[in-house]
Amino acid sequence: MSRIPSSGLERIVFFSDAVMAIAITLLILEVRLPAGAASPDVGRQVLALWPKYLGYFVSFWVIALYWVAHHRCFQHIRAYDRGLINLNFLFLLFIAFMPFPTGLLFGHPTQVASVTLYAGTAAGMGLSLGLLWTYAVRRRFIVPGFSRRKIRDIRLNLFLPPLVFALTIGIAFLDTTVAVYAWLLLVPVYVFRRLRERSLALRP
Amino acid sequence: MSRIPSSGLERIVFFSDAVMAIAITLLILEVRLPAGAASPDVGRQVLALWPKYLGYFVSFWVIALYWVAHHRCFQHIRAYDRGLINLNFLFLLFIAFMPFPTGLLFGHPTQVASVTLYAGTAAGMGLSLGLLWTYAVRRRFIVPGFSRRKIRDIRLNLFLPPLVFALTIGIAFLDTTVAVYAWLLLVPVYVFRRLRERSLALRP
Amino acid sequence: MSRIPSSGLERIVFFSDAVMAIAITLLILEVRLPAGAASPDVGRQVLALWPKYLGYFVSFWVIALYWVAHHRCFQHIRAYDRGLINLNFLFLLFIAFMPFPTGLLFGHPTQVASVTLYAGTAAGMGLSLGLLWTYAVRRRFIVPGFSRRKIRDIRLNLFLPPLVFALTIGIAFLDTTVAVYAWLLLVPVYVFRRLRERSLALRP
Amino acid sequence: MSRIPSSGLERIVFFSDAVMAIAITLLILEVRLPAGAASPDVGRQVLALWPKYLGYFVSFWVIALYWVAHHRCFQHIRAYDRGLINLNFLFLLFIAFMPFPTGLLFGHPTQVASVTLYAGTAAGMGLSLGLLWTYAVRRRFIVPGFSRRKIRDIRLNLFLPPLVFALTIGIAFLDTTVAVYAWLLLVPVYVFRRLRERSLALRP
Repeated sequence: MSRIPSSGLERIVFFSDAVMAIAITLLILEVRLPAGAASPDVGRQVLALWPKYLGYFVSFWVIALYWVAHHRCFQHIRAYDRGLINLNFLFLLFIAFMPFPTGLLFGHPTQVASVTLYAGTAAGMGLSLGLLWTYAVRRRFIVPGFSRRKIRDIRLNLFLPPLVFALTIGIAFLDTTVAVYAWLLLVPVYVFRRLRERSLALRP
Repeated sequence: MSRIPSSGLERIVFFSDAVMAIAITLLILEVRLPAGAASPDVGRQVLALWPKYLGYFVSFWVIALYWVAHHRCFQHIRAYDRGLINLNFLFLLFIAFMPFPTGLLFGHPTQVASVTLYAGTAAGMGLSLGLLWTYAVRRRFIVPGFSRRKIRDIRLNLFLPPLVFALTIGIAFLDTTVAVYAWLLLVPVYVFRRLRERSLALRP
Repeated sequence: MSRIPSSGLERIVFFSDAVMAIAITLLILEVRLPAGAASPDVGRQVLALWPKYLGYFVSFWVIALYWVAHHRCFQHIRAYDRGLINLNFLFLLFIAFMPFPTGLLFGHPTQVASVTLYAGTAAGMGLSLGLLWTYAVRRRFIVPGFSRRKIRDIRLNLFLPPLVFALTIGIAFLDTTVAVYAWLLLVPVYVFRRLRERSLALRP
Repeated sequence: MSRIPSSGLERIVFFSDAVMAIAITLLILEVRLPAGAASPDVGRQVLALWPKYLGYFVSFWVIALYWVAHHRCFQHIRAYDRGLINLNFLFLLFIAFMPFPTGLLFGHPTQVASVTLYAGTAAGMGLSLGLLWTYAVRRRFIVPGFSRRKIRDIRLNLFLPPLVFALTIGIAFLDTTVAVYAWLLLVPVYVFRRLRERSLALRP
C-alpha cells in the first residue's frame, strides 16, 4: 500500500486528542459519594474518598504524560498508512480503557487483579506507542534529517515504562504493595532521562 | 439548493470526529464491577467481566473501522449541501447509539433482542455511510478525476458489511449463536477486499 | 470595547462544536435497561424502552438542527466581542442541558413538568441563538455585502421555533398531549421555510 | 531546554478546549431525578431539584469564565516548553475535577466539606492559570511588544478570584452560608475590572 501524504495526519492527531481529552475527563466519574450519603456525615465521607482523589490525580498524570509522548512522536511523523492508523487505535484502546482500572485500583488497592490490570493497561499504552514509533521509523514516515540518536532516545523513553510495569505484574502475584511502590522506580528513570535530554539539548 | 464551497466541510468532519471519539470512549462506562463488590471476590469478579472486555474491544474496532471508512470518503469529497449533512447526522446517530447495544449484547449474548439490535446498529452505520457516498457521487461532490473503479470499490466496501449484518438478523431468530458467528464472515470479506485493493494499488 | 479580528473565532466555533458533539452523544446514557434485568425478559424490556429510543432520536435531531443553524450563523460572522462570547455560552448552556429534559420527557411523557421543561430548553436554544444573530448584526460583525433579506430570513428561522415552543408551554398546563402534538406545527413551518429558501436560491 | 516554535501550540489549545468542553457538558450528569421517581410526583420532584439547576448554572459559568481567561492568555502566547505544558495540565486537572465539587455543594450546601472543596477547586483553576501566565511572561513566551500594563492587568485578573476563594475557605469553617455569599464579592470585583478595561480600551 502506498503512503498517504500528510494532509490526513491532522485528522488522526485531532481524533487522538479528542479521545485522550474525553478519557482524562471521564476519570472524575469514578469519584462519587456513596449513594444516600446523609448530610451530617458528608465531611467524613469526603475525606474517606482520598484514595479516589489519588486515583484521579495519578491517572490524570499518566494520560497527560502519554499525551506529551504522543505529541512528541507526531511532531516528527510526516506520513502514514493503514498500519500506523491501526497502531494508533491500539494506543487509544488502552487510553480509553483507563477509567476502569483506575476505579478498580483505587477502590480495591491491595488486590492482585487491580494492580495487574492497572499495570497492564499502563504497559499497553507505552508498548503500543513504542510500536507505533518503531513502525513509523521503519516505514520512513519520520521527517528527513531527524538524527538516529534522537530516534533511539524517543524509542527508549517509550519502551522503558512498559518494561517497569511488566516487571511489577510479576511482583504483584507475590506482594501487591511492593508492586505499587515499584512503580515509583519510574520517577528516577524519568528524572534521569529528562536530565540527559537537557544535557543533549534535545527539543521536547 | 446550490452547493456550498468546501470551507464548511472542515467543520462537518470535525464534528463527526468529535462524536466518534466520544462514542468510542463512552464504551468503557459499560464495563463496571457489580455495585457493592466485596474485596475478597474482586479477582474473580474482574475475570467474570470478560464478556464486557470483549464487548469493549469489539465495539471499539467497529467504530474504529467506520472512522477509517468515514475518513476515506471525506478525503475525496470537496463540496456539500444540506442532504449530505443530514446523511452524515444519520451515520452519527448510529455511531452514538453504539454503547447501548454493546452493553446489551455482552450482558445478554444469547438473546434475540441483543443480537438483532447490535446487528441493526452496525448495519445502520454502513448503510448510512454508503448512502452518503452514493449521494456525494450523484451530486458530483467528489474530487474531479477520481476513477469510477475506485468509486465503485468504496461503495462496495460500504455496502457489504450491512448486507452481512442484515442477513444475520434473519438468522438470529433461528439461532443467536450461529448469527454471531456469521459476523465472522466479515473477516474473510475484509481480508479479500484489502488484498484486492493492494493489488490494485488503491490508496487507502 | 473594540472588536477582535476573526482569528479567535475559530476557537469559539471549535469549542461550540465540541459541546454540541458531547451533548448529542451523552443522550444515549439515558437509554438503559432497568438494573437487574433478567435474561428471559430482555426482549420484552428492550421493546418496552421504545419511548427512550424515540427520545434519543428526537433530541438527536433537535441538537443536529441547531448545529446546522449555528453553522449557518457563524459562516457569516467575521468578528466577535465579549458580548457575542457570552450569548454563545448561553446557547451552549441550553444545548448541554438537553440530556436532562430528554430523560424526563421520555420517562414521564404526560407530566406538565416534563413537557414544559423540554419545550423551555428547546425554546432557550432558539432564543439565545436568535439573540446572538441579532447582536452580531447590530454590532456589524456580519460579512459586508450580506443582503438584508438574508439577514432577516435567518432571524425569522431562529425566532420561529422558540415562539412555537413558548406557545405550547401555555397549552401544556391545559393538556400535555395536545402540547406535544403542537410541536409538530414546526414541521410544516420548517418545510415552508425550506421551500421558500430554495425558491430564493438562498445558500444554506 | 530550548523553546519550541509555536506550531505545537495549536494542539495544546485544542486539547484544552476539548477538556473544558467535556467538563462543562458532564455537569448535567449531576442533575437527575431520584431513582424510582413515580409519575404523580414528577412535578414536585423537578422543582425540588432547583439546587441542582443552580449548581449546573453556576459551575457552567465558572468554567465559561475560565475558558475566556484561558483564551485571552493563549492569544498572546507564542512559544511553549514542557513547564508550560505541565502548568496547563494542572489547570485542566482542576477544570475536569469540577463536576465532583459541584454535585457535592449543591447536594449538601451547608456542609464545610462542600464549600471548602468547591472554593478550593475554583481557587486552583485561577491559581494554576495565573502561574501559567507568570511563567509564560518570565520565559518570554509572550508576543513581543505586548505592554507591561496589559501583562500586569491579566495577572491581576487571574490572581484576584483565587484570593477571594481562599479567603472564603477560612470563613467556611466559621459559617458556610457567609462563605458562599462572600463569593458574590467577585461580582463587583469583576464589574470594576471590566469597566477599567473598557476605559483603558484593552482588547478582550
